[in-house]
Amino acid sequence: MTITVHGHSASDSSHLVLHVLKELGLSYEFVQPNSFEEIKTPEYLATKHPFGRIPSLSDDGFHIYESRAIARYLINKYQGTKTSTVLIPSDVQKAALVEQFISVETSYYSQPLGDLVYQLIFKKLHGGEPDLKIANEAREELKKTLDVYEKLLEGKDYLTGEFTLADLLHIPATFYAINVADEGDLWNKRPNVSRWWKNLSERECWKNIVTEYKLLELEQ
Amino acid sequence: MTITVHGHSASDSSHLVLHVLKELGLSYEFVQPNSFEEIKTPEYLATKHPFGRIPSLSDDGFHIYESRAIARYLINKYQGTKTSTVLIPSDVQKAALVEQFISVETSYYSQPLGDLVYQLIFKKLHGGEPDLKIANEAREELKKTLDVYEKLLEGKDYLTGEFTLADLLHIPATFYAINVADEGDLWNKRPNVSRWWKNLSERECWKNIVTEYKLLELEQ
Ligand SMILES: N[C@@H](CCC(=O)N[C@@H](CS)C(=O)NCC(=O)O)C(=O)O
Ligand SMILES: N[C@@H](CCC(=O)N[C@@H](CS)C(=O)NCC(=O)O)C(=O)O
Repeated sequence: MTITVHGHSASDSSHLVLHVLKELGLSYEFVQPNSFEEIKTPEYLATKHPFGRIPSLSDDGFHIYESRAIARYLINKYQGTKTSTVLIPSDVQKAALVEQFISVETSYYSQPLGDLVYQLIFKKLHGGEPDLKIANEAREELKKTLDVYEKLLEGKDYLTGEFTLADLLHIPATFYAINVADEGDLWNKRPNVSRWWKNLSERECWKNIVTEYKLLELEQ
Repeated sequence: MTITVHGHSASDSSHLVLHVLKELGLSYEFVQPNSFEEIKTPEYLATKHPFGRIPSLSDDGFHIYESRAIARYLINKYQGTKTSTVLIPSDVQKAALVEQFISVETSYYSQPLGDLVYQLIFKKLHGGEPDLKIANEAREELKKTLDVYEKLLEGKDYLTGEFTLADLLHIPATFYAINVADEGDLWNKRPNVSRWWKNLSERECWKNIVTEYKLLELEQ
């Protein structure tokens, strides 16, 4: 078994895949493109990702792109073989609640958060100026979502009670928002959300990624 | 077994759930809210959907919200029990490709399509005027995505070769774009995309939904 991740150390979608690999206890090779131009070449589009994105993954000749699909593939194939971490439970009702919160993340959390992080961090990195109107609108939207999370997390350590893929998907972009964009108050000022984020950000596997891929040195 | 769908006959997320139910051969009760205000009441938020949306589903006392999570739950629990339709295959690599195209739909297809359909159809229905700048940008974005689909669908009837949940998720919003917003050329002018859409829109289960829920009479 040889798993190769084609990713980038400053890409949150790549962090997601790396986190899943570590939770499942899998070893892998990490390959970075030589430049951001490389991921738009005909060769890259034909062999790695037809939409010109990172990450993608090869596992003994089987190739797949899109971080969330990669996560599910790894879980389907390897969960339980090296570690006891359960990211998607086999029980049908428990799995359904994981899916419910994955869809909640996609529908109400990741878009405003992605907009906020893009404006406040990545646009600057690429030499642009943040559009504060967009950032403010995204922040207001995210606040509404976090108010609902505050209720959903009442008396719970994780969204479904136990740590699952639904929680994990929130980590990479939230980490940037809190630690690089300095938006921590959004999470800290809501006690249940704050406890939840502490539980997530202190996962050993995640802390290893922060160190190993130098997530706090964005301008590397 | 009593399955109840809390949905609306003019909601594309509801059509998605109804389509999955029919493909799996399941019977269900369909309950509509009395008004769009009802889905924002404290009672509704506490018992049906904390973000105030439709659809949600109850299955013998088990309650779940978010259309895509509902779809996966129904497949996990009932696939193969009443019909032979396979929406998510059990083979790990085949399932991975279904997940890949589900993520492609979410990442590059549904957002521009949703924006287009919202501007050209739903905003009008709610008494607003379409913002043509947003509609035009969404259309350009969608064209780029469909150009990639045209390559991905070369020599194939469906995204992974066979009809799966990945294809199904495209149907409800695309149906509105083509049949109500009159944007059919985006699909028709790309031969592979056009063949694919023909295969999708001619699924018996989908045609039954169009008739039963009067999808072409939006102003009902
Ligand atoms: N839906 C994709 C998103 C991937 C994505 O947008 N990756 C970014 C880096 S985090 C990228 O490739 N950006 C380069 C570009 O868009 O040109 C996934 O989850 O894998
Ligand atoms: N991510 C949700 C989206 C549900 C959704 O937005 N439903 C629309 C109708 S198609 C709705 O409830 N609209 C009412 C509102 O947003 O107030 C899902 O897939 O179920």
